Amino acid sequence: MRHLLEPTNLTIEEIDQIMEQALDIIAHREKYADACKGKKLATLFYEPSTRTRLSFTAAMMELGGNVLGFSDANSSSVSKGETIADTIRVVSCFADIVAMRHPKEGAPLIAKRFSGIPVINAGDGGHNHPTQTLTDMLTIRRELGHFDHLTIGLCGDLKYGRTVHSLIKAMSRYEGNRFVLISPRELKLPSYMIDEMKTSGIPYVEYDSIEKAMPELDVLYMTRVQQERFSDKAEYERLKLAFILDEEKMKYGKENMIVLHPLPRVGEITEGVDNDPRAAYFRQVENGKFVRMSLIYTLLKWRSEEDNIKERQLMKDTEGKKCDNPHCITTKEPLAQEFYIDTKGIKRCNYCDHEI
Amino acid sequence: MRHLLEPTNLTIEEIDQIMEQALDIIAHREKYADACKGKKLATLFYEPSTRTRLSFTAAMMELGGNVLGFSDANSSSVSKGETIADTIRVVSCFADIVAMRHPKEGAPLIAKRFSGIPVINAGDGGHNHPTQTLTDMLTIRRELGHFDHLTIGLCGDLKYGRTVHSLIKAMSRYEGNRFVLISPRELKLPSYMIDEMKTSGIPYVEYDSIEKAMPELDVLYMTRVQQERFSDKAEYERLKLAFILDEEKMKYGKENMIVLHPLPRVGEITEGVDNDPRAAYFRQVENGKFVRMSLIYTLLKWRSEEDNIKERQLMKDTEGKKCDNPHCITTKEPLAQEFYIDTKGIKRCNYCDHEI
Amino acid sequence: MRHLLEPTNLTIEEIDQIMEQALDIIAHREKYADACKGKKLATLFYEPSTRTRLSFTAAMMELGGNVLGFSDANSSSVSKGETIADTIRVVSCFADIVAMRHPKEGAPLIAKRFSGIPVINAGDGGHNHPTQTLTDMLTIRRELGHFDHLTIGLCGDLKYGRTVHSLIKAMSRYEGNRFVLISPRELKLPSYMIDEMKTSGIPYVEYDSIEKAMPELDVLYMTRVQQERFSDKAEYERLKLAFILDEEKMKYGKENMIVLHPLPRVGEITEGVDNDPRAAYFRQVENGKFVRMSLIYTLLKWRSEEDNIKERQLMKDTEGKKCDNPHCITTKEPLAQEFYIDTKGIKRCNYCDHEI
Repeated sequence: MRHLLEPTNLTIEEIDQIMEQALDIIAHREKYADACKGKKLATLFYEPSTRTRLSFTAAMMELGGNVLGFSDANSSSVSKGETIADTIRVVSCFADIVAMRHPKEGAPLIAKRFSGIPVINAGDGGHNHPTQTLTDMLTIRRELGHFDHLTIGLCGDLKYGRTVHSLIKAMSRYEGNRFVLISPRELKLPSYMIDEMKTSGIPYVEYDSIEKAMPELDVLYMTRVQQERFSDKAEYERLKLAFILDEEKMKYGKENMIVLHPLPRVGEITEGVDNDPRAAYFRQVENGKFVRMSLIYTLLKWRSEEDNIKERQLMKDTEGKKCDNPHCITTKEPLAQEFYIDTKGIKRCNYCDHEI
Repeated sequence: MRHLLEPTNLTIEEIDQIMEQALDIIAHREKYADACKGKKLATLFYEPSTRTRLSFTAAMMELGGNVLGFSDANSSSVSKGETIADTIRVVSCFADIVAMRHPKEGAPLIAKRFSGIPVINAGDGGHNHPTQTLTDMLTIRRELGHFDHLTIGLCGDLKYGRTVHSLIKAMSRYEGNRFVLISPRELKLPSYMIDEMKTSGIPYVEYDSIEKAMPELDVLYMTRVQQERFSDKAEYERLKLAFILDEEKMKYGKENMIVLHPLPRVGEITEGVDNDPRAAYFRQVENGKFVRMSLIYTLLKWRSEEDNIKERQLMKDTEGKKCDNPHCITTKEPLAQEFYIDTKGIKRCNYCDHEI
Repeated sequence: MRHLLEPTNLTIEEIDQIMEQALDIIAHREKYADACKGKKLATLFYEPSTRTRLSFTAAMMELGGNVLGFSDANSSSVSKGETIADTIRVVSCFADIVAMRHPKEGAPLIAKRFSGIPVINAGDGGHNHPTQTLTDMLTIRRELGHFDHLTIGLCGDLKYGRTVHSLIKAMSRYEGNRFVLISPRELKLPSYMIDEMKTSGIPYVEYDSIEKAMPELDVLYMTRVQQERFSDKAEYERLKLAFILDEEKMKYGKENMIVLHPLPRVGEITEGVDNDPRAAYFRQVENGKFVRMSLIYTLLKWRSEEDNIKERQLMKDTEGKKCDNPHCITTKEPLAQEFYIDTKGIKRCNYCDHEI
C-alpha cells in the first residue's frame, strides 16, 4: 500500500502520473463526479490548518466521496493519552484514506506503519508538507508547461520555510533547473541544503533583494518573513522592504514569469500585484484542490496493488542512541528508534531526518 | 452576481420570489432532493452560532449538496493575520456559495467585493442578520397568508435587537402595517429608527407591557431582555415580568394571532405557552431551514445571470475621514473608506451604515 | 417512537433483531449503501468524544446518509442558556435522528421527552453508554457465536466503569453466564450491583489478579485503571502490574477466549498482545461502526411504528424531594422531578437512576 509522507516518496514517473491525472480531472470534471462515491477521507488535524483542511475536503467532495475527522486535537479526545499507532488503527475502521496534520515531526510515518489505509502527510511540524509541493508543481506545469530548464527564485524565510526546502528537493530532480535564493542573512537556506546542491551540481546564486533577482526569473516563490525570527527589530524594519513584492518590482520581471505563494500572505505581496496576470497565487489555491483530487484518486487506485517502493535500509538502534530533535514524534511516543544512513554517510532519524 | 448582505438588498419582487420558491420547496420536497447535487456551501463562522450554522447545513443537505467550513475562528487558522479579502478568494476555489458569520460589522460586504461566488451574510456583529428576517417573513406568510395590513408587536430589547430592526425595515415596505413597540425605557427603539418611521409615515405606538398591547396584535415578536443591559439590577427585576409572555397574557390575544421568537429564549416565554397553537416559534425554526433552501437555490440560479441591481452611489473618502464605529470591519482591515449619502442626506459608512 | 437511552431499553428480542440486522449489513454492504439516502444524523456532542463521534459519522455515511452537528459545546452556542428541551425541538427540524453525548446524567432522557425524532444516548456522564454495550455484544456474537453459558472476566476499574456495569446488566439476561470480577480493592464493583447479582442468582467470583482468573475465561473485558482513583500512589504502583495484560499472561488463557477493551487504552494491554489472534479490541472498533449502522437503520424503520414499550410507572414528586446526585441533569434544568420504584422497592430518580 502506498502513502505520501514526503515529496520524494514519489518517483519522477509517479509525479508525472499524479500531474497527468490532475490535468485529466481538470479537463473532464464530470467524469470524476462520482469517482470516490462511497469512499471516506478522514482529516485528522492535530493542529488547526483551515486552508489545507478545506482543500482536502473540497477535493474529496468533488470526487463524490465523504469526509469525516477533527480540526483541532485540543477540542478532541483522540490525542488524550492515546498513541498515534492506536488512533490510526481505529480510524482505519472508519475511513478509506487519511490526511494527517501533526505538530510533531515524523508522526505520519508512525501512522503509516500501523495503518490499514493510505496515509497522506498534510504537514508534520516544520518537517514536510508534500501536498503543498505537489500544488506548487502543478501550478508550474499548468502555467509554464514543463519542469526543466527553469530559473526558480525563492524569496523570504529560506531557513525555516519547509515549502521552500521541499520545492528545491523536488525541482532538483529535473534537468537544467537553477535556483535563485533571495533572503536576509538571518534567514538563509540551511548549510546542509547548500551542501547538497553543491554536491549534486545544482546551480544556485544568492541575492539580498528581489529587485536584483527579478529579471532572471521564470518562477518567483514568495514566503512570509516573520518578525519573530529577528533578534534585532530595527534590522527587521530596515530589511523587510527588500523582500516585499510590489507593482514597481514586477516591472523588472519577464513577461511570462509567474509569482507563487503558499498563502496566507501577511503583507509580503502588496494588493497592487493581485491584478497582474503573472500573479498565480490564487490560481495556485485551485491547483491545490485539483492535485489533492488526483492524489486521493491515485492512492486509492494503487491501494490494491503491491507496494513496490524500496524502503530505506533501516537499522534499529543498537547503541541506545535516541533522536535528540525535540520536535520529533519519538520524544513523545515510546517507539523503537530507527535510523538510516543518508547519501553522504550521515546517520539520520528515520522519523524526522534529523542528524544523529 | 447576487449576494444577500442585508434584508433590503432584495426588492419586494425578489422577496416574493424567494417566498414562492420556499413554498414550492415545502410542497414538493422530493423535487429538490438533488437540486444542488455536486454543489458546495462553505459555512465560514468566525464566531460560533450553532443554530444558524445547522440550519444552513441542513438546508444545503436537503438540496442534495455538500457543506464544508469552520464553526469557530479561534480553533481555525483562517483568521490568523489573513484579510477577509484573501480568505474569500481562497474559499471561492473550494465552494459554490458562502454563508459568513463575523463579529465585525460590514465583513460580508468586503467578502462580496472579492468573492467569486455568492455571499450570504449569516450575521455581522449587531448589524444585520438577513436570513433571520427572511425566516420571520416566511413564518408570517405561512401562518397569516399575507404581509400587509398587520399590527406587529415587538417586545423586549428593541434597542440592540438587530432582528427587530431588520423586521421593521422589511415589513415597512408593505402597505397598511402598524408597529406596536413594547419595551422598558432603557431598551426603546433607537431614535433614528423612530425618525425614519415618522418620516415615512409608518404608524407606530409604544407600550410598557405586553398585557396592554396584546388585544391589538396580529404578530407578537418576542426577544430576549438581557440583564446586563440594565445599570440598576433592582429596576431590571421590577420590570422584567411585564415583558415575559405567559399563559395568562395569551388569554388577551386574538384567536389567530401568532407568537414569534428568533430563539434561543432564556425565560421570556414560559413553557406553558408552548402548547398554545398560536405559539409559532418552533415552526419558525423549520421555516428558517426552508427559506435558506430557497435562498441558496435562488442565488445559485441567479449566479450566471447579470447582476442588475443598482449599487449605492459610493464616494471614496476625500477628506481623510474614517468610520469611528469600533465594531466596523474597517477598523481591522486597512481598506479604502467608502461612504454614501442616505435618504435623509446623512453621510454613512458603506460597510456598517454608521453615521459619519 | 423508539429511542435508545440505556441498554436495557431493548428487550432480548429487540437486541437479537439489532444483532441480526448488523450481521446482514456486514454480509451485504452494497445493499445498504443508499439505505439512508436523504436522511440526516445530528451528532450533538456537549463534550468531546472523537472516537464515538467518528463511529456514528462513519456508520451514517456508510448507509448513504448525511451528518451534521457539533463536537464540543464550548465552541458552540447551543448550550448557552438554552435548555436541552428547546435545543432538541430545534434540532428535530434539522435532522431525522440524534446521537447525543452530554456530561450530565439523564440529559438524553429529557431530550427524548421533547424530541420529534429518535434519540440515541452516546454517553451521559458516568451513567450509560448503550452503543458501547451493543458494540461489545456484537463482538461476542461474531467471535464466539452466542450470548449464553459464558465465563466473562471484567478487569480494572469496576467501580466507576460504566461500560462494565452495562455489560453485566446486558449479559445477565442470558442463561448460564458467570462473571469473574478482577480489580484492586479500591475499584471493586459497587455493592448495589453485587446485591443485584446475588438476588438474581447470577454466579460471580472475585479475583485480585488477571493471572489467577485467566484459565477460566471465555471473555476478558479490560478497562483503564486511572491513577487518580488511588489516594495512595505507592499502593497504585504496587498493584497496577496485576491488572496489566501482557503476552506472558495470555499464555494462561484458553485457545478460543477473546480480549475486549472499549479503548482508548493507556498501557493496561501491552503492544505485544496486539498480534495475538485472541486480541479482539481492534475488530471491536469496526463492530462498533456496524452495530451503529444497524441501530440507526432499525430506529428509523421503527420510527413510524407505534411505541409499544411499556414506560416505567412514574410518580411526580409530591413531597418536594429532589434528586441529590450532583451530576444529574435535573440539577441544571428546572424540571418536574420524576421518580420510580425499582424492583427492590427503592425509590430512584428517573433521569439518572440515583437512589433517593
